[in-house]
Amino acid sequence: MNTTIGFIGLGIMGKPMSKNLRKAGYALVVCGHVNKGPVEELAAAGARIADTPRQVAAQSDIVITMLPNSPQVEQVVLGKNGVIEGARPGLVLVDMSSIAPLASRKLAAALAARGVEMLDAPVSGGEPRAIDGTLSVMAGGKKEVFDRCYPVLKAMASSVVLIGAVGAGNVAKLANQIIVALNLAAISEALVLAAKAGVEPQLVFQAIRGGMAGGALLEAKAPLMLDRKFDPGFRLKLHIKDLANALETAHDIGAPLPLTASVMEMLQALKVDGLGEADHSVLVRYYEKMSKIEVKR
Amino acid sequence: MNTTIGFIGLGIMGKPMSKNLRKAGYALVVCGHVNKGPVEELAAAGARIADTPRQVAAQSDIVITMLPNSPQVEQVVLGKNGVIEGARPGLVLVDMSSIAPLASRKLAAALAARGVEMLDAPVSGGEPRAIDGTLSVMAGGKKEVFDRCYPVLKAMASSVVLIGAVGAGNVAKLANQIIVALNLAAISEALVLAAKAGVEPQLVFQAIRGGMAGGALLEAKAPLMLDRKFDPGFRLKLHIKDLANALETAHDIGAPLPLTASVMEMLQALKVDGLGEADHSVLVRYYEKMSKIEVKR
Repeated sequence: MNTTIGFIGLGIMGKPMSKNLRKAGYALVVCGHVNKGPVEELAAAGARIADTPRQVAAQSDIVITMLPNSPQVEQVVLGKNGVIEGARPGLVLVDMSSIAPLASRKLAAALAARGVEMLDAPVSGGEPRAIDGTLSVMAGGKKEVFDRCYPVLKAMASSVVLIGAVGAGNVAKLANQIIVALNLAAISEALVLAAKAGVEPQLVFQAIRGGMAGGALLEAKAPLMLDRKFDPGFRLKLHIKDLANALETAHDIGAPLPLTASVMEMLQALKVDGLGEADHSVLVRYYEKMSKIEVKR
Repeated sequence: MNTTIGFIGLGIMGKPMSKNLRKAGYALVVCGHVNKGPVEELAAAGARIADTPRQVAAQSDIVITMLPNSPQVEQVVLGKNGVIEGARPGLVLVDMSSIAPLASRKLAAALAARGVEMLDAPVSGGEPRAIDGTLSVMAGGKKEVFDRCYPVLKAMASSVVLIGAVGAGNVAKLANQIIVALNLAAISEALVLAAKAGVEPQLVFQAIRGGMAGGALLEAKAPLMLDRKFDPGFRLKLHIKDLANALETAHDIGAPLPLTASVMEMLQALKVDGLGEADHSVLVRYYEKMSKIEVKR
């Protein structure tokens, strides 16, 4: 296999994702500025090490970025010694970070001016599915660019779907994060009401899980709330970032999101309380504090 | 089988539920004040007809009520010619209506003073599952009363769960209705944002349904929104009734429900717009109107 993949952003998600690319037989070039451990780990797995994003790009056919938010992606791609400086025409940047759709479109426009193609391709599934290579990828970009990158994405994911033009992947991701955030609040309102009414929240969970209230989030998070286990999982501060991107996007395009805005403020209050690193299911604490009761088995 | 069941409230739900009791071989006594059609239909299926709830109670071992809300239940049970007037000690009232938990407790106390036992046993599942006899019953009451009524409830339901003391069934039902209402709003915010951002809501639905945003409600209601099919289903005005009971209960016991209150106002706005008889998934219209766009395939 001749395709060489550059991978920038070897964090909790990026490290296992890049390892799955190696397992699938791709040549890999990595660089890391934040900490050296993951870079050395990848080097031991056969990846080449480059000093800068520019050098990564110069050696790659496809560059993947997996970074916290748009400022980091913009710095790595468009900044000094960035991907754009090392890119030759025909390179594809696949940004798998979860960022604002408008930031994706801006990046794509800057890259297009240099003959570089781009997909936005955020994922859902979290660390366990990054390790298993069973992430869900929601992609935006040109069909022919998507088709070219599809086998590479499939080495990290079980589901890889093209949603629309560049930015559409991140729109789908924001839609997902809105539903998850509001559903966490819904579960919290329901279970705290039950507890305050003197009814076992555990039995309410059992009674409703098979009906219209049932779903993946209730199954995953209600037990964490009932067991008081708020280790991440998905960090509250990352959900704040996603809702900030959703609200910014919504305000730009004119789509009021009143409940998303309310849940955002609840998450902010919990962050002020020092819970930014906890699992986002800790949202139940906001309601518990208001109602002066705990949801537990 | 010697048990005679009285059934009061032969509406969309009560009629098929009572028919399933006949199918299971129970002797049935019915009465109907609102319209005569269902009463005659049940008589043709072998039910005796009584003139008043009092006469129903006098001939029954267990009386089931399936009525719109607590005022109707209170009238039928405690009012003139009500169940309580015809009841002998040992009768059990099983109220399967969805009413406020505090109203259930008040009823149970009034009945207990006359030696009559009570369960609150609201259901989820809607008309199709009432017809199939596969409802979910969430019950509150004494264990021995629940055990006595269990086979009767099982003739109408696939899942019959005792949640706690009288009122607990309706607490579980309210928890269910809160999650469903807020999740409908969540789906609406997500799909309207996608549409306004120029992305196909249908593709976003496909991309997210397998992940943490996935569940029974998304599967059932997103297609209705995308197809613009707002025939009930579950009528918006009934969801308003449930949220009113949830908020009243929450205010009584001290459990603030800020998002439930917000969604309640959205549903009220749609009712003012003449949509009270539409399926509750018409909530998406509230968002569509704000954002001046439609979610459709």
